[in-house]
Amino acid sequence: MDRTIWWDHQADRIGLVDQTLLPGRYEATACAAIDELVEAIQVLRVRGAPALGVAGAYGVALAARTITADDLEEYVSRVREASNRVRSARPTAVNLAWGVDRALESIGDAGDADEVRARTLAAAERLAEEDLVMCRALGAHGAALIPDGATVLTHCNAGALACVGWGTALGVVRSAVEAGKRVNVIACETRPLLQGARLTAYELQRDGIPVTVCPDSAAAHLMHEGGIDVVIVGADRICRDAVFNKVGTYMHAITAHHHGIPFYVAAPSSTLDPDLPGAGIEIEERGRDEVACYGGTSTVPAGVPVRNPAFDLTPLDLVTAVITEKGVFSDPTALFP
Amino acid sequence: MDRTIWWDHQADRIGLVDQTLLPGRYEATACAAIDELVEAIQVLRVRGAPALGVAGAYGVALAARTITADDLEEYVSRVREASNRVRSARPTAVNLAWGVDRALESIGDAGDADEVRARTLAAAERLAEEDLVMCRALGAHGAALIPDGATVLTHCNAGALACVGWGTALGVVRSAVEAGKRVNVIACETRPLLQGARLTAYELQRDGIPVTVCPDSAAAHLMHEGGIDVVIVGADRICRDAVFNKVGTYMHAITAHHHGIPFYVAAPSSTLDPDLPGAGIEIEERGRDEVACYGGTSTVPAGVPVRNPAFDLTPLDLVTAVITEKGVFSDPTALFP
Repeated sequence: MDRTIWWDHQADRIGLVDQTLLPGRYEATACAAIDELVEAIQVLRVRGAPALGVAGAYGVALAARTITADDLEEYVSRVREASNRVRSARPTAVNLAWGVDRALESIGDAGDADEVRARTLAAAERLAEEDLVMCRALGAHGAALIPDGATVLTHCNAGALACVGWGTALGVVRSAVEAGKRVNVIACETRPLLQGARLTAYELQRDGIPVTVCPDSAAAHLMHEGGIDVVIVGADRICRDAVFNKVGTYMHAITAHHHGIPFYVAAPSSTLDPDLPGAGIEIEERGRDEVACYGGTSTVPAGVPVRNPAFDLTPLDLVTAVITEKGVFSDPTALFP
Repeated sequence: MDRTIWWDHQADRIGLVDQTLLPGRYEATACAAIDELVEAIQVLRVRGAPALGVAGAYGVALAARTITADDLEEYVSRVREASNRVRSARPTAVNLAWGVDRALESIGDAGDADEVRARTLAAAERLAEEDLVMCRALGAHGAALIPDGATVLTHCNAGALACVGWGTALGVVRSAVEAGKRVNVIACETRPLLQGARLTAYELQRDGIPVTVCPDSAAAHLMHEGGIDVVIVGADRICRDAVFNKVGTYMHAITAHHHGIPFYVAAPSSTLDPDLPGAGIEIEERGRDEVACYGGTSTVPAGVPVRNPAFDLTPLDLVTAVITEKGVFSDPTALFP
C-alpha cells in the first residue's frame, strides 16, 4: 500500500496524497515550500493526527532545506521560526506540534546547515517509519477487542489516509481482518467535509473490507436497530480527562453508552497530552463555507451565521478503553504513568 | 405570511411552495394531477407532517376534479383509488393518511360527482384552516415552556414550511417571540437534505428571529458548551411508546437527556397513532444519491452502499413533554385517553 505522506528524495520535497480530491481522484501533490505545507494542512490535503505528526517533522526538514543564512545561529533560528508556522497551522491536534518538536530536537549540536538538514530529515523519516510500526502494534492490540462477524461504527477517517499507512481505528479493523475475522464497517459520513464518506469508504473498499456509509445523525438509529457491535474512533489529542476528536465523536460516545455498546479510541501515544486538562484546549472553529456551501451551491441563506467546530471533547468516562501501540487501557489514568 | 400549500381556485388545482428550491428561490408550483402531487410529496417539494396532512386532503379534492366516470359508484371508487396513491406516497408520517381519510369521509352520501367535488374541497379547506388554528394553539401552549433569552436547538424543519403556516416546533418559538421573549435558535442542518440549513434558517431569518446553523454532529458539543437551553422538534407520528421524526431526532433526545436539557416534541394531535406500537411502523429508507451526491459531485465511492433512513424512533421516556394544540403532556399516556 502506498504511503499517505513521504519524502521525495529526487525532488527534495514532501510528497502527499491530496485528500481533498478523494474519492474522485487518488493523486499525489508536492510541498516544496513551507507556505505550501501550511496551506496543505489548513485545507486538509493532509489530515489525521498521526499523519500531521509526520507532516510536522517533514516540515522542519523542508524548512532546513529552503532556508539559508550567513551563520548557523541565524540559520537555526529561521528554521525554528518556519517550523513554528507549521506547528500552528492547526491548533487542536497535539501530534502536529509533537512532530515538529521531535524534528527540531534532532538538530541538537549540529555543526553546520548541512548537518541540520541531514538530522531533521533523518528524524522525520524515523517518525514516518515509527508511525507504520505504531499502527501495526496498535492494530494488533485492538484486533483482540473485535468479535468475529462484528459491525464496527467509525467516524471521520482514522485510517491509512490519516497516518503514513494502515491506520489507527481502521488499523484495528485491518488487523482484525488480517487475523481472519469478518468485519463490517459503518462509516459515518462526517460533516462537513465528509472524510468518512470520501476517505474511509474509499480506503476500505480498496482493501475489500465491507463498508456502508450513513449520515452522522443516523448512527444512533443504527445502534437502536441492534446493528452496531463496537464503535472505534481515532483521536487528535488525549488529555487526562478528555479525548479530542472530529466533531460528532462526543455524540457517538453518549449514544454508544446509552445502548451499552463499547466505545474505543485508537491513537498513538504521541496523541497523549499530560499537561493540560480538556478545558484548556482550543477547539478549532473552521470557516462558514465548509458547512454553508457544497459544489458551488449555497445551502444556508446568506447572512445566517454558522457554527463549525472541527472537534469536540469526549470525557474519558464515556470511553470503554483507549488503544495505543502500547496496549489497551481501560483505566485511563494508566495512560499517564 | 404566505401559506405553504393552498387551493388555487382560479386554476382549480393545488398550489404549493416548492421547498426543494429554497433557500435559493421562494417559488410556487402547481399540482394539477395526482401524479404531480405524488411526485411533489416524494421529492419533498411539500414535506412536514402537518403540511402532508393538508396535501393529502387536497389530493382527494384534486382526484375528485380530475376523475370522471359513468356512474357515481364507479366514480367514487376511482377517487378512492387515486387518493390511496397519495396516501402511500410516503409511509412514515401518519398525517398524510389522516388528511386523505378526513377528505374521503366527507364524501358521505353525496348524490353526484359535483357534490363529491364540493364536499372534498370544503373538507380540505377546513383542514388547512384548522392547521393554522392548531399551530397557534400549540404555539401558545409551548411558548410558556421557553425561558426569556433561551437558545433553542431544533432539527429539520417543523416550521411554517412544514405546515400551512406558523409551524409546530418553530410555532412555539414564534409564539414565544410574539409574547416578547428573546429567543435564539440553533438549526441543525439535517442531513442529507438539509431542511434545517435550507428551510428553518430561511424562515427564521425572514421573520427576524436569530438563527445559527450547525452540523447535526455538533449539537452535543454545543450542549456540552452550555449553549443550549431547550430542544424542540416536530414529529411525523407519535405512537404510545415512541415518536417518529426526522433521522437525528433520537440522537438529540439521548444527548439532551445526558445533559439534563428539556426535550420537547411539538405536533398536532393528528400525528397521534394509538393503534400500533413503534416497532410496527415502517421507517422509510430513501435513495442512495441523497447521501452520496451533492450538486452533481459524488461524495461516496461508486459501489459503496449507503443507509438513508428518513426517520428514527425516539422512545417516549426520553421526551420531557409532547406539546399539541390541546396542551402540554409531560405524561405521554395522557396523550391517548
